Amino acid sequence: MKNKKSNKIKVGIVGGSGYVAGELLRSLIHHPNTEIDFVYSHSHSGKKISEIHTDLFVSDLVFSQKVNSEIDIVFLCLGHGNSTRFLLENEFSQTTKIIDLSNDFRLNKDKILKLKNTRQNQEKELEFVYGLPEIYAQKIKESNYIANPGCFATAIQLGTLPLTADFPTIKEWHVHALTGSTGAGQSLSETTHFSWRNENLSVYKPFVHQHLGEIHQSLKDVSQNFEGQINFIPMRGNFTRGIFATMYTNLESNNLENMSEEEIISSYKNFYKDAPFVKISDKPIDLKQVVNTNYCLLHIQKIENKILVTSCIDNLVKGAAGQAIQNMNLQFGLPQETGLTFKANYF
Amino acid sequence: MKNKKSNKIKVGIVGGSGYVAGELLRSLIHHPNTEIDFVYSHSHSGKKISEIHTDLFVSDLVFSQKVNSEIDIVFLCLGHGNSTRFLLENEFSQTTKIIDLSNDFRLNKDKILKLKNTRQNQEKELEFVYGLPEIYAQKIKESNYIANPGCFATAIQLGTLPLTADFPTIKEWHVHALTGSTGAGQSLSETTHFSWRNENLSVYKPFVHQHLGEIHQSLKDVSQNFEGQINFIPMRGNFTRGIFATMYTNLESNNLENMSEEEIISSYKNFYKDAPFVKISDKPIDLKQVVNTNYCLLHIQKIENKILVTSCIDNLVKGAAGQAIQNMNLQFGLPQETGLTFKANYF
Amino acid sequence: MKNKKSNKIKVGIVGGSGYVAGELLRSLIHHPNTEIDFVYSHSHSGKKISEIHTDLFVSDLVFSQKVNSEIDIVFLCLGHGNSTRFLLENEFSQTTKIIDLSNDFRLNKDKILKLKNTRQNQEKELEFVYGLPEIYAQKIKESNYIANPGCFATAIQLGTLPLTADFPTIKEWHVHALTGSTGAGQSLSETTHFSWRNENLSVYKPFVHQHLGEIHQSLKDVSQNFEGQINFIPMRGNFTRGIFATMYTNLESNNLENMSEEEIISSYKNFYKDAPFVKISDKPIDLKQVVNTNYCLLHIQKIENKILVTSCIDNLVKGAAGQAIQNMNLQFGLPQETGLTFKANYF
Amino acid sequence: MKNKKSNKIKVGIVGGSGYVAGELLRSLIHHPNTEIDFVYSHSHSGKKISEIHTDLFVSDLVFSQKVNSEIDIVFLCLGHGNSTRFLLENEFSQTTKIIDLSNDFRLNKDKILKLKNTRQNQEKELEFVYGLPEIYAQKIKESNYIANPGCFATAIQLGTLPLTADFPTIKEWHVHALTGSTGAGQSLSETTHFSWRNENLSVYKPFVHQHLGEIHQSLKDVSQNFEGQINFIPMRGNFTRGIFATMYTNLESNNLENMSEEEIISSYKNFYKDAPFVKISDKPIDLKQVVNTNYCLLHIQKIENKILVTSCIDNLVKGAAGQAIQNMNLQFGLPQETGLTFKANYF
Repeated sequence: MKNKKSNKIKVGIVGGSGYVAGELLRSLIHHPNTEIDFVYSHSHSGKKISEIHTDLFVSDLVFSQKVNSEIDIVFLCLGHGNSTRFLLENEFSQTTKIIDLSNDFRLNKDKILKLKNTRQNQEKELEFVYGLPEIYAQKIKESNYIANPGCFATAIQLGTLPLTADFPTIKEWHVHALTGSTGAGQSLSETTHFSWRNENLSVYKPFVHQHLGEIHQSLKDVSQNFEGQINFIPMRGNFTRGIFATMYTNLESNNLENMSEEEIISSYKNFYKDAPFVKISDKPIDLKQVVNTNYCLLHIQKIENKILVTSCIDNLVKGAAGQAIQNMNLQFGLPQETGLTFKANYF
Repeated sequence: MKNKKSNKIKVGIVGGSGYVAGELLRSLIHHPNTEIDFVYSHSHSGKKISEIHTDLFVSDLVFSQKVNSEIDIVFLCLGHGNSTRFLLENEFSQTTKIIDLSNDFRLNKDKILKLKNTRQNQEKELEFVYGLPEIYAQKIKESNYIANPGCFATAIQLGTLPLTADFPTIKEWHVHALTGSTGAGQSLSETTHFSWRNENLSVYKPFVHQHLGEIHQSLKDVSQNFEGQINFIPMRGNFTRGIFATMYTNLESNNLENMSEEEIISSYKNFYKDAPFVKISDKPIDLKQVVNTNYCLLHIQKIENKILVTSCIDNLVKGAAGQAIQNMNLQFGLPQETGLTFKANYF
Repeated sequence: MKNKKSNKIKVGIVGGSGYVAGELLRSLIHHPNTEIDFVYSHSHSGKKISEIHTDLFVSDLVFSQKVNSEIDIVFLCLGHGNSTRFLLENEFSQTTKIIDLSNDFRLNKDKILKLKNTRQNQEKELEFVYGLPEIYAQKIKESNYIANPGCFATAIQLGTLPLTADFPTIKEWHVHALTGSTGAGQSLSETTHFSWRNENLSVYKPFVHQHLGEIHQSLKDVSQNFEGQINFIPMRGNFTRGIFATMYTNLESNNLENMSEEEIISSYKNFYKDAPFVKISDKPIDLKQVVNTNYCLLHIQKIENKILVTSCIDNLVKGAAGQAIQNMNLQFGLPQETGLTFKANYF
Repeated sequence: MKNKKSNKIKVGIVGGSGYVAGELLRSLIHHPNTEIDFVYSHSHSGKKISEIHTDLFVSDLVFSQKVNSEIDIVFLCLGHGNSTRFLLENEFSQTTKIIDLSNDFRLNKDKILKLKNTRQNQEKELEFVYGLPEIYAQKIKESNYIANPGCFATAIQLGTLPLTADFPTIKEWHVHALTGSTGAGQSLSETTHFSWRNENLSVYKPFVHQHLGEIHQSLKDVSQNFEGQINFIPMRGNFTRGIFATMYTNLESNNLENMSEEEIISSYKNFYKDAPFVKISDKPIDLKQVVNTNYCLLHIQKIENKILVTSCIDNLVKGAAGQAIQNMNLQFGLPQETGLTFKANYF
């Protein structure tokens, strides 16, 4: 029994009571190569996970306050800032891989975490790689420490990267995106109250959303001259799951007015030729085509002198837990799709 | 200016930041015979009401911590139990009418409130009348103190009273009703979280809902022999406004099997012949027909040996604020409909 | 009785079974100065209006196939193109005012309708005025024939007009707006099917929406040099009522980088100082603040070097029926607000 | 390649463009033991299935008008009445298994289909077994022809069967259930229009729903003396997926007043001890716990003298396509859960 189990990747989940941890659990209990070793939750320790993630009524897993430091991989599903603190207080083995789902280590300026008091009383540095598999698959395979991208950032990067990479003169993207309520997490607030949010819409953090940093960083990484502006208006939508984003750039102001739609679509198809989870649709798309899946679906149109890209993902899957598992698969040499071919539910 | 205003009914609202108070404000600012004197809120004193009821952006009213004890009428929109406390601590003039929207004074056993320390150091008793205008209009006109019915109780009583009154042998009603999220108030909880409630359904307090007391009391009042059972399953619906209730009784077990559908519908039409806000539909009904109105819409069918009554109201209007205004109109000798002919929004 | 009635404005509604006609009916049955003379519907002639507009169960009005050509005012709620045909086939008296809610007469190039075969066998021309009261109130008062603006066009114009008027150097607006399902009318289609639209989002007609024409026309009218681009992405939202629009312009590229937020907000407040239905909020806004009202609510922010305007309206009220009544009020010398102070429902 | 494939069950789907066929496709493309041989659709022949089931954008399957009569199993997803016609017109091999998802063969009186013109010019009879695995697993294993239960019928039978079986004196169940919009299929109608259905509720076919026949049949099968009444009120809910049902019986009128809650829950647990997809929750349940899964979740309470059972399923999964696959698994000797352990999406 033990031996049989030991072939599987032993997984720990920290911050186990949140929405993202719930999606990790829903996914990993069916993943053919993993077994869940512990689900850490300070506040719910001792409870069955099904008391919080009530759809997991067939699982006997129990929240724990103990961390197994010899685990193969640990997913950190903590609030922004808390991952750093957790890693400073809890040491893992040299071989333990870490996937952090907060924004603590996404930016180059934050990517190195110095751990001072290790067992051997030596300094240790963890260097995180930005976990967007569509551009950093090779680095992810070689790294133990992954900073999983933000949900808006994933949808927007996957929509803007190919064109920006191929046409470095692009100076500006106009981006608009709506997120479902699960993007705001489980905390109760006016804007997560059903009576308020139902049938309602609102803008938040226009032009200054915290995901802009990682988007800029990736765009510059694929196009060193990119000094462009990303004008981003995020909105709260009246739905639970998903991100629906539109982004356009004016070809004229970018001296690209002679580009045909076909050339541009080719640029996208070529960019994603090895990416199993990014698909280009030749028809207009709608959000529910990707809900409960790990896909990012893109639609690209040239209209007048503009290129419009529509991009949608499930914020909890490709925007969080699914992408984390995709990264884990890369780290462990598994096909990226392993355990991620979910039945969509569409309606 | 002052003189002109003094012809209007001066209104105070206590507990002004809740959903029901919001509906009272939305309604009363357009009521032709009222002017709002104060909106009492302990926690929001000093703020404009539009900071809380954000759709009332054209109003300059400000929450106050001061109560005008000489007011013509005060609406108490406090949590259950708090109305009693408020009235013990705040004395009003002899002529001030009080409409309480909590369940503090609805039952006969609770209908008298003894106030000990009045200005003249004398005991005073306030005797509340149950404010369902469709059966107690005369009493309401003659009383200064009204206990406004509960929302479920309104929908269910209006659906069961006529048949129960006319056919005292009825022994049992099977009642099922769904309420919108505003029925649970503004407090944040798991079941009011958008991510949870959206697209979801659940039962609560089956067979033991607190409104059963007032329903039984009214049914007994119209049918002295009524010893019947009311089997009531309340549910939380995934919508914001409204109550949709079905209720049926078996004619056979009640020895009424020879009653025709026409006779029964006549019984309802006759019962409500003077009730401006109860309408009998000869077609199946849907909830949105009454949303944002003060109507109760009923549909009555005889199917096999059962009578099925479908009843729907807006929980915040006919189920709370609208009914309170209807009671106020009665108390001040105004037509019941005054200020209550709202444009529905249907969609 | 007749005499008493004759003081009221006699109204006819053509195309009476659609959503917009329903909103006109809901509104006009409570309007203090109107009486509904006929509700024309070819397909439903002879039915009670409550069979189609099922929330109007208290109304005894019946759809008719007869048009009263001596009516004081007629509202045309027909599909685009059908208004022209209807007016060619149905002649009205010289004094009958006409408010057309289609896009047949909104553009200057379409604003004159030639009627060939009039009673006196003379040619007659109807010249339509674009019915946006916030800029054309005076013209509307003096005209018998009004082309009521489109819903998207209303929300976007009210958000862009003041800045464009005051600062003629503006070259570009980036506009994004979501509309509720009632914007698509009653016709059944894949995108109006509940199973599809619920929890879903999609783009339609990006950059080429038919309302762009009227928006450009008005912007040029307030700013003769306006040669700007309006980049407009319309979306289908998963809600029934309302339009929520964001629009921004880059001050830098418009040589306006020194403008302060205060100056710009002042520009808006000044522009709308006599407009009873446009309000500037100093806090971020949400769609439900205006649902079931005739208000347009605006929020204006300077962020970095951009001005962002958020604008929301109820598509069926300020975006259609309410604005039509506002125009009627102007035409008949009534205060604009008459009959339009609806109780909002917020939730 | 061919050989490898031939180990898999070859599946045909008839009526491939509907919601249920979509769910079958979503499920079967990930089922480890099946390969899809044809997807028959008269109206969409030649189109890719992803043109209709737009979330299946990674599939290259194409709708066909040709039926492979040597297929291992065919699922009929046709409208009620059309399965009979299809089978009369299309002959399958002796070994082809058929799972019909309409109500054509569910009742004992309909369970035998006589095929007149077979290849050998002989009469042939297909005898269908009612495909509720929780009571008929053995029969299903042994039969080639399965009549898959209705969605309401599944939720209600799984909630009422154990108690009815163990306590044959039960005379009456009071049942109330809401269904999502996908239950009504893809056809466009007033009640499937988003503008109508959103935030709305309505009753349909009270006490006379067509699923009552199969429910009665099963209850009599487990309790031969069952002559009870099932009072069933179905409702249209404002959500897309799921059935939420409550059902209660009065222990007193059934002479069972001494039964404890524990005894009754034991009765249910024992009844379902071998049923992998029926779970008993010891806490109140909500609909989303089962959405996009094949589970039926039950909660059982004794309250006063009544037993209340709450039952919920996904109407398209356990109520249709999932249950059909569960039946297929039984027919082919596979574990019932094969290919049915979907990641739920909860929110």
